Amino acid sequence: MKGLKLKKKTSLLSQIQTPSQVRNLSSQQLTELAQEIRDRIITTVAENGGHLAPSLGVVELTLAIHYVFDATQDRIIWDVGHQAYAHKLLTGRQDQFHTLRQFGGISGFPKRAESRCDAFDTGHSGTSISAGLGMTVANDLKQSSARVVSVIGDGSMTGGIAFEAMNHAGDLAKNLIIVLNDNEMSISPNVGALSSFLSRKLSGKTLMYLKREMENFLKSLPSLGPNILQMLRRSVDSFVSFFTPGMLFQALEIHYIGPINGHRLDKLINAFETARDVEGPVLIHVLTHKGKGYEPAEKDPTSFHGLGPFDVRTGKGLSASAYQSYTKIFGKTMTKLGESDPTIVGITAAMPQGTGLDCFGKRFPERFFDVGIAEQHAVTFAAGLASQGFKPVVAIYSTFIQRAFDQVLHDVCLQNLPVTFALDRGGIVGEDGPTHHGLFDMSFLRCIPNMVLMAPKDENELQHMLKTAVEHGGPAALRYPRGDGLGVTLDEELVCLPIGKGEVLREGSDLLLVGIGSTVATSMEAATRLEAAGISAAVINARFVKPLDRELIVSWAKKTQCVITVEENALQGGFGSAVLEAFQEEAFYPKAFTRLGVGDEFVPHGKQDILRGLCGIDADAIESAAHRMIDSRHGKILHAIGQTACR
Amino acid sequence: MKGLKLKKKTSLLSQIQTPSQVRNLSSQQLTELAQEIRDRIITTVAENGGHLAPSLGVVELTLAIHYVFDATQDRIIWDVGHQAYAHKLLTGRQDQFHTLRQFGGISGFPKRAESRCDAFDTGHSGTSISAGLGMTVANDLKQSSARVVSVIGDGSMTGGIAFEAMNHAGDLAKNLIIVLNDNEMSISPNVGALSSFLSRKLSGKTLMYLKREMENFLKSLPSLGPNILQMLRRSVDSFVSFFTPGMLFQALEIHYIGPINGHRLDKLINAFETARDVEGPVLIHVLTHKGKGYEPAEKDPTSFHGLGPFDVRTGKGLSASAYQSYTKIFGKTMTKLGESDPTIVGITAAMPQGTGLDCFGKRFPERFFDVGIAEQHAVTFAAGLASQGFKPVVAIYSTFIQRAFDQVLHDVCLQNLPVTFALDRGGIVGEDGPTHHGLFDMSFLRCIPNMVLMAPKDENELQHMLKTAVEHGGPAALRYPRGDGLGVTLDEELVCLPIGKGEVLREGSDLLLVGIGSTVATSMEAATRLEAAGISAAVINARFVKPLDRELIVSWAKKTQCVITVEENALQGGFGSAVLEAFQEEAFYPKAFTRLGVGDEFVPHGKQDILRGLCGIDADAIESAAHRMIDSRHGKILHAIGQTACR
Repeated sequence: MKGLKLKKKTSLLSQIQTPSQVRNLSSQQLTELAQEIRDRIITTVAENGGHLAPSLGVVELTLAIHYVFDATQDRIIWDVGHQAYAHKLLTGRQDQFHTLRQFGGISGFPKRAESRCDAFDTGHSGTSISAGLGMTVANDLKQSSARVVSVIGDGSMTGGIAFEAMNHAGDLAKNLIIVLNDNEMSISPNVGALSSFLSRKLSGKTLMYLKREMENFLKSLPSLGPNILQMLRRSVDSFVSFFTPGMLFQALEIHYIGPINGHRLDKLINAFETARDVEGPVLIHVLTHKGKGYEPAEKDPTSFHGLGPFDVRTGKGLSASAYQSYTKIFGKTMTKLGESDPTIVGITAAMPQGTGLDCFGKRFPERFFDVGIAEQHAVTFAAGLASQGFKPVVAIYSTFIQRAFDQVLHDVCLQNLPVTFALDRGGIVGEDGPTHHGLFDMSFLRCIPNMVLMAPKDENELQHMLKTAVEHGGPAALRYPRGDGLGVTLDEELVCLPIGKGEVLREGSDLLLVGIGSTVATSMEAATRLEAAGISAAVINARFVKPLDRELIVSWAKKTQCVITVEENALQGGFGSAVLEAFQEEAFYPKAFTRLGVGDEFVPHGKQDILRGLCGIDADAIESAAHRMIDSRHGKILHAIGQTACR
Repeated sequence: MKGLKLKKKTSLLSQIQTPSQVRNLSSQQLTELAQEIRDRIITTVAENGGHLAPSLGVVELTLAIHYVFDATQDRIIWDVGHQAYAHKLLTGRQDQFHTLRQFGGISGFPKRAESRCDAFDTGHSGTSISAGLGMTVANDLKQSSARVVSVIGDGSMTGGIAFEAMNHAGDLAKNLIIVLNDNEMSISPNVGALSSFLSRKLSGKTLMYLKREMENFLKSLPSLGPNILQMLRRSVDSFVSFFTPGMLFQALEIHYIGPINGHRLDKLINAFETARDVEGPVLIHVLTHKGKGYEPAEKDPTSFHGLGPFDVRTGKGLSASAYQSYTKIFGKTMTKLGESDPTIVGITAAMPQGTGLDCFGKRFPERFFDVGIAEQHAVTFAAGLASQGFKPVVAIYSTFIQRAFDQVLHDVCLQNLPVTFALDRGGIVGEDGPTHHGLFDMSFLRCIPNMVLMAPKDENELQHMLKTAVEHGGPAALRYPRGDGLGVTLDEELVCLPIGKGEVLREGSDLLLVGIGSTVATSMEAATRLEAAGISAAVINARFVKPLDRELIVSWAKKTQCVITVEENALQGGFGSAVLEAFQEEAFYPKAFTRLGVGDEFVPHGKQDILRGLCGIDADAIESAAHRMIDSRHGKILHAIGQTACR
C-alpha cells in the first residue's frame, strides 16, 4: 500500500472525495482513516441520534470493500442499511453528514436518490441477497464484469427471505459475493440454531451424531489394524472441528471463506480480493464487534444499536423522557396480564427491548419466545399456540408486520384464532424514515375478515386495549405510536372495552372530529383552538378501526353535518375510508366531510412533528380544514371539503 | 401386526371408523387398505377434480402416521394440505368424501371445523413447522405428552417460513416431529440448491471442498505412515457419501432419520416409532413418488398435481375449455413482448405451468427464473433486476403475493422500480376455497404509493395491459381471474393503454354500473337484462383500480345519479371504496350508490358461479340491486342503496 500525500495530517477523511481514493492509502493511513470515520460517526450520532453500534462495527469492513471494489461500477448492497454511515462518509456525503436523519438531510439508510454508490434502498432485513442476485443476473445478461456485494448481518440471515435467496443463488451459480457480517447479534443477542452453528457452538447431540457417523466411516475402511483404529477414534474429537460454519453454505452450493477478523484490514482486503475472483456464489464470513472503538457501545451494543442524542463522554442519553413510552406501558401491561392468566404468551422477532417485551420475558421465561428476525414464523408459531388454547401476543413493529401479512390473514384470521398483534411504531416513526413508518396497517389489516383493529388514544387506553384484545377470543391488533405517552394517569384495574364502541370525548354542534389513536389528542387540541375561534367541535375517539362504531359516528355526523376524520395512516382504504364506507352503507353523507391522513406518497425522514405537519395531520391542519369548511361567525358550512391531504 | 376380522373382505376402508383402527390391521391388510384408498381417491378426483398426484404419493405415509400416532390426541399438520385426502378418508369422512371440494361438501384441505383430527387449516406452503412448533410448546406448557407431527414437502421446504421455523425449532429443542415428504417436486420439478442437496446431487465444487478439508484432517493426524495416509486418501471418495442430507438439518440442531422409502409401510412405521421416542426435534426424510399407483399421474405428476374431472381409464381431462384461459394468453403475450424487448424477464415461484410462464421460459431460458416456492425472494430478486435496467414480470397468484406484501411495498414501490406483477387467480378461484381465493389484492395493493393497479375485462385487454404495465416505468400489477377468457378476438398489435383511463362500454341514463376486471362482463349482462326491464344502464370498464379514472366515473355518476360498483374483491378498502373516496374528494355523492363486492367474511369453496352468486356479485345481484334502487317505470330513484353485500 502506498501512502497518500496529505495536505493536513489531521484530516485524512476530508481528502477522500471518491471511494476509490482509499486505494492510495498506506496501511497506516487506512488505520488512521478508520479512526477518523469512527470519531465522525460518534460525534454525529451523539448530536442527531442514529444507529451507532452497527456502523461502528463495520468501519474496517467498509474500508476494505471500497479498497477492493469500485462502488461506482460494482454494486454494494447494505442489508438493513443502518450500518452504512462509513459508506456514506466515503462516497461523497461528508459535507451533508451532519444532516444525518434530519428532515431534508441525508437518510440514515442507503438511498439510490442520494448517491450512485448506493445500489439499493434498504431498511427491512434480509433483502440484500435477493436484490444482489437480481443485479448479478442483470450483469450477466448485460455481459458486464461488475461485481455485486451483499453485506448481511447474522441476524438478518435468520429471516426467511435470506434463505430463499441463498437457495436460489446456489442453484444459479452466478458470481454473487455475500459478506456475512457476524457480530453474534441481530439487534439484541441472536437466537436460533443458525446462530449457534455460526459460532461453532454445536450441541452435544450434533457432536454425538458426527462422532457416530465418523466411527462408522472408520470401521468401513479396510486393512486398518485395531491399534490404528483406536488411535483414529481418539482423533475424532479433533475431527469435529472440521465442521466449520462453511458446511452449511457449502450444502447450499455457496463457496465459503472465513471466518475473518473483521477489524483486520489486511485480512479483509485479502479475503475480498480472493472472493472477487471466485467463480460462482461465495460467502465471506467476517467476525465483527458491534460498537467497536467506542467503549460504552462495545459494553452495551443493544442500547447503542439505535438511540437518541447522547453525551459522547459518558454515553448517557440526553433526551430524558417526560413520560413513559407506549412501549414501556405495553411491556408492563403484558407482565400484569401474565400474572393472572397463565395462557398468555409473549412473542418477539428479535426485539425484546424494542418492543418492551423483555420485562415479560424476565418474569415468565417459559412463556416468552424470541424467534429471531422471522416475522412470518412468529405469527404462525402464535397461531399454533392459539389453536391449543393459549393467548399469544405477537409484538412486532407496524412496518415489520408487513412481512407476515399472509400469515396474519391465512394462518390466524382464516381460522379466527385468538392471536393479539401489538403493533408498536404505528404511524410516523420519525428519523428512520419511509422504510420504518407504519402508515399502511389500518388499510391492509382492515380488509381481513375476523380481524379486530384498534388504536389507543393514550397509554392508559393502551393498557385496557391490550386486555381487550387478549380476552376477545379472536384475532385482534392494536397499533400505537413510537414515543412517549401523554402522561395520563394509569388505571390500576384493567377492563375490557366493549368491542366496536367508540367514545365521545367532547360535545359540539358545528363540527365532528373523529380521531383514532394518536390523532385523538390532536383532535382535542384542535377542538380547543377552534372553540376560541367560535367553532364548536365535538370529538369522538373511535377506538376501533374495525368494527367501527358506526352508530355513534353516524349519529354525531347527522347532528353536526360537518365531519373531519384524522388518521396517521394512508388515506387509501384507511380509517377515514372506513367511516366513509359506513356513511355510504347508511346512505347518509354529511354536508361537509374531510378525511385528513397521509396522501398517496411515501413520507420522508425527519422529526415526527415536522412530518405530521407535512402530512397535514396535526392540529394546525385540522384547524385550517375546519376554517375552510365552516364560517366561524354563523357556524354555516362554507365548503363540502376542507382539504384531503396537503401533500 | 394382527389381522382385523372383517365383515366383507372387499371393503376394508369402510370398516375404518376411527384412525386408530389401522393399528389392528395386518401387514397384508394395510397394503390392501392402501389400494382401496387409492381407488377411492382416483375415482373421486376423476369426478370432482382435485389434487390427485400429491394425495396418491402419501397413502402409505398417511397410514403409517395413523398407525403410530393418535390423530385425536397427537396433532398432525399437513403442510399445504392438498395431500390430505387419505387422512380425510381415515378420519371419519368417508361418507362425505364424494362431496370433496363441492359447495357445501368437504374441503380439499384440512379444516379444523370438519374434524378434530385436522389440527390446523393449511393451504399456503411452509406453515406446518411453525404451527407445529407452536403446538409443541403448548403441549409442553400444558405438560401434555401428545406429539406433534408436521408433514412438509421438499418444495415447501424452500419457502422462507419453513427455514425460520427450523432455526427456531433447533434452538428450542422441543419434541417436534417433522416428516419431510421428498418427491423431488414442489408442483413442477423442484429448483434450488436445497433440492440438489436433498437428492445428494452434490456439485463437483462441494465435493472438492469436502475432499480438501478431509485431506487436511488426515494430514493433521499424528503417527500415520505415508502408506496408510495414501490408503486413507483413496477412501476419501467413499467418505463423501457420509455427507447425507442429514448434515443440513443436524447443522440446525434437528435430528435426522432417513432417507426412508415412503411406500414401504414397515420401514415408515419403524421410523415413526423411533421418532416418537426421540428427545428434541427430529426430521424423518421420506422419499415418495407423486402420483404413485396411477400410471398417468406417475408419468406426468405436474399435470396431475391439481386438475379437473378426468376419464379414469385414459387420464384425459373431461372439461374441454371453450376458450383460451387467461393464464394461456398471459404466457403467449409474455413471449410476444419478450421477442421485441430483451430487457423483459419472467419470474415464477415454482409454478411455470400454473402461471403460463413455461412457454416464455422455453423461448428465453436465459431470461426465465423459477426461484422455487419463495415469493418474497421472487419479488426482491425482481427489484434487483429492475434497478439495473430490466423489466421483470413476476407471475404469482393473487393469494400467494400476500406472502410478499412487504417486498412489494418496501423493495419495489418505495424505490418506484419497474416491476410488473401478473396476479393470476384474482377473485374467486372456486373449489380450492378460502385459502386460495384472491379477494384482497385490490385492498392491500391500492394503499401502496407508486403502484398502478389494473384488471382486464377480457383476455384481449389482458394482452394490452401487460404491455402497458411492462412499459409504464414503475410498479404495476394486473390481476385477472382463474379460468377461461370470454372468447373475444385477440388483437394482433399490442398497445399501451393510457394509465388511469377507463372506458364507457355502454351509455345509459338511469343507472351507472362500474365494473373492474371480471365484473365488467357481468355488468354488461346485467345492463342488457335491465334494459329489457325498462332501466337504462350505462356501463364503465374502470380498467384501473389505481389511478382511478375519477373524471370519467364522476361525470357519469353525475349524469345518472345512481351508481353501482361491482368488484370481485373485499368491500373493505376495495375498488368500490376507491370510487367512494373519489366521490368524497370531489364532494359529490350520487343520490343512490351501492357497492357490490365480497362482504367481510371468508368465502367457502365451491364452483365459481355458485360463489359469485353467494357473494352477490353476479348479474342477478346487480339486477336486484338496481331494481331496489330504481323504479323501472319512471326511472325514479327509490332507495339510496340497493344492497351492499348479500352475505
